[in-house]
This record gives sequence, C-alpha cells and structure tokens, in this order.
Amino acid sequence: MSSAPTPRTRIRRIPDNADYQRATLHAILDDGYLCHIAFTDEAGGAHCLPMAYWREGEHLYIHGSNGSRLMKRLAGGAEVSIAVSHLDGLVLARSAFNHSMNYRSAVIYGVFEKVEGEEAKSAALDAFMHHLAPGRENEARRGSPQELGATIVLRISLAEAAAKLRTGGPQDDEKDLAIATWTGVLPLRVMRGAPEPATDCPVSAPDYVQAWIS
Amino acid sequence: MSSAPTPRTRIRRIPDNADYQRATLHAILDDGYLCHIAFTDEAGGAHCLPMAYWREGEHLYIHGSNGSRLMKRLAGGAEVSIAVSHLDGLVLARSAFNHSMNYRSAVIYGVFEKVEGEEAKSAALDAFMHHLAPGRENEARRGSPQELGATIVLRISLAEAAAKLRTGGPQDDEKDLAIATWTGVLPLRVMRGAPEPATDCPVSAPDYVQAWIS
Repeated sequence: MSSAPTPRTRIRRIPDNADYQRATLHAILDDGYLCHIAFTDEAGGAHCLPMAYWREGEHLYIHGSNGSRLMKRLAGGAEVSIAVSHLDGLVLARSAFNHSMNYRSAVIYGVFEKVEGEEAKSAALDAFMHHLAPGRENEARRGSPQELGATIVLRISLAEAAAKLRTGGPQDDEKDLAIATWTGVLPLRVMRGAPEPATDCPVSAPDYVQAWIS
Repeated sequence: MSSAPTPRTRIRRIPDNADYQRATLHAILDDGYLCHIAFTDEAGGAHCLPMAYWREGEHLYIHGSNGSRLMKRLAGGAEVSIAVSHLDGLVLARSAFNHSMNYRSAVIYGVFEKVEGEEAKSAALDAFMHHLAPGRENEARRGSPQELGATIVLRISLAEAAAKLRTGGPQDDEKDLAIATWTGVLPLRVMRGAPEPATDCPVSAPDYVQAWIS
C-alpha cells in the first residue's frame, strides 16, 4: 500500500515523512512495548493512557483487568486512536527554526474487539509473552481459568493505520550556512540493561534472558 | 501534594502506584522529549499524536506550525489529556498473570493557552533549546520575526496532573514459589549515542555536544 488507507490516516503535516508500507508499520510496532491510547469517556472527555501492547499479523493487542473502567470502555465499542512512537535523535540545525527530531511513529484508528474464549485468550497472551522474551511462554505458568476470566484481551485491526518517520541530518536554509555552530544529530536509543534476577530467583538465566542485553 | 488534585487525576487502577508529589511529576516530565496528546476533533472523534514538549515551572509547553490543524484545535480551547511515559523494564514473574512492567508515567488534563508576543515566544523556545542541549540556545540563530510569526507556542498548567510508577522485582503468588523458572527484571533505558556531526558541520563539538553521550 503506497497511499493512505483512509482520509484520517493521510499525513497532512510534512507529507514527505509519511510511509504507508505495511513492513514499515509492522517494524515500528514490533520495536516497542508501550502504546498510547486516546479515547473519550461517556461525557466526550478525551483521555490518553499508556498501555502495554503486542502485534500479531494485522492486529494490535492489549490486555487488562476486567474490573478496569478503561478496559470496559475500550471493549464497549469506543472509537480509539493509538500511537506508538520511537524517538531516535535530536537534530541540531544552525537556526532554532530548523531544529528537528528523528523519530518513527505509527497511528492506528478504529474500534477494539474482544478476544473471546479461554483458548484464544491464552494463545494471545502466549504471543505477548513471546514478544517480551521469546521462549518465556514455555516456562512461566500459564493463566488459570480464574486468571483468564479476570483478564480482558482486546485487539484492533491495523487496516486504518499510518506511519511517519524522519531520519538524517539537519536541513539548513541557504542563508544560514555561514553560521559557525555545530550541526548534526544527537542520537537516542532504547538499550537493554543487564538482567536483574530476583533475590529468590531459583534458576540460572535461560537463553532468552542471557540474550537480553544489547 | 499527597492526594489527587481532582477526581479525574485520582489513580483508580493499582492506587498504590500513584504518586502525587510535584517533584516526582517534574522529574518524569524533565526526563523526556516526547509526549502523547489526546484530543477530540469538532465531530468528537479521538486523536492521539506524539509531540515534542518541555517543562518550565508549573507548565508543559509545545510548539508547532500555525498552519497545522492540530495546533489550531489545541489553541482553540480543546480539552486535552497528555501522557508522558518511560518504560524502565519488563518484570518476569513465575506466572504469566503476575508479569508486569516498571515504568514512570504522568498524565495531565486541561486546556492549552497561547504564549503571545514575539519576546515571550522567543524566550519559551530558548527554554526548549536549553532542554534539548543546555547552551545551544546561545549558539543557534534565534527565530526571526517571520519564523516566530509562523510558530504557535502553547502551554498548559500542571495543576491537574498525576504520576504513576512501578519499580522493583516481581510479586509472585505464594502458591507459585515452587515453580523453577527465572524471575527478575529485564531493564530498559534510553541511552544517548555518540553525536553525529553533519558532513558540512563547520566547528568542533562544543561542551554540550561532548557531554551528550551517556
């Protein structure tokens, strides 16, 4: 897909930074753990909340407690807008005006649907675990019927989604090129630190823990 | 302040993780560059967009083009909800159900106000530059009257804000303690990479660039 799927996913501000390729969208989603979800309450008030998420195919998944007001609202057909953003660097130009940021972001519009049934919920949560630490899903105790019953799993189609990104150095105006100030990029990157076993951790680190540190 | 400023900033889900101290809120905001803003359009549809931000005292600031629909909407009195979130680690427990994440997050509610006047806008944008790279505000060319005229600077009070955070290791159920699987935290941290000067960068790295890498 090389154009916006719908009018509200068409990038208007700096359209050259838009990217409607599925592979770009998937890579941005697969590179993160936290999304931000915008939704309205019954009175029309806007809310923005961070949530853990994972992707499977053409859906983004979240989960939460079935006692949560948020999950009830999201499961009840509320229209949502979801953003996943990675900040890759600060871009320092010769003029304040041309300063920028390098980033990769995705925005999804739509309505969540409930993943129903113990088996489907358990499989979805296995996929979440696999996203967090591949292999972990075979070692942690899976959810009991009671725990699965207390958990809502929701998914939303990626049909209405768009990605936007900026890479590269500063773009100075011709007239500013004589200004003798440092220009370039200050990179930012999410790094994985050394695993911290719990004080009562009963076993040595398995492969997926040893492979964690980057 | 040791309690929620308003009903909508009272943390209902896992209230033990709430923190209503100003210093906590400020530290969370000062540790980031990107916020996510939820707002509704004229038809009531929810939108979630990432934006660069900075803090000065008891206000969070954003800026953007005065040609942007988003900025016009935000400047026009739309009620917003803003989230700033830092993911600090994945928490691996013995059961899937007790897996968690360590994070620091802040949510702000309110309405933006416009920063009016060339001088006030320029001072606010200097503060932004200082947040990005302290000292940079004295080296980059400041905005011209034309550039400042094309820029909207907005700020929102932190009066209605709350922070939430989780730290520490997994909390396993008593009944799961015999399960022999690795438990602990897989840390995540935003790191600063080596500065990348532009190919035509005219000077060597000043102190604030040399101090960037962590």
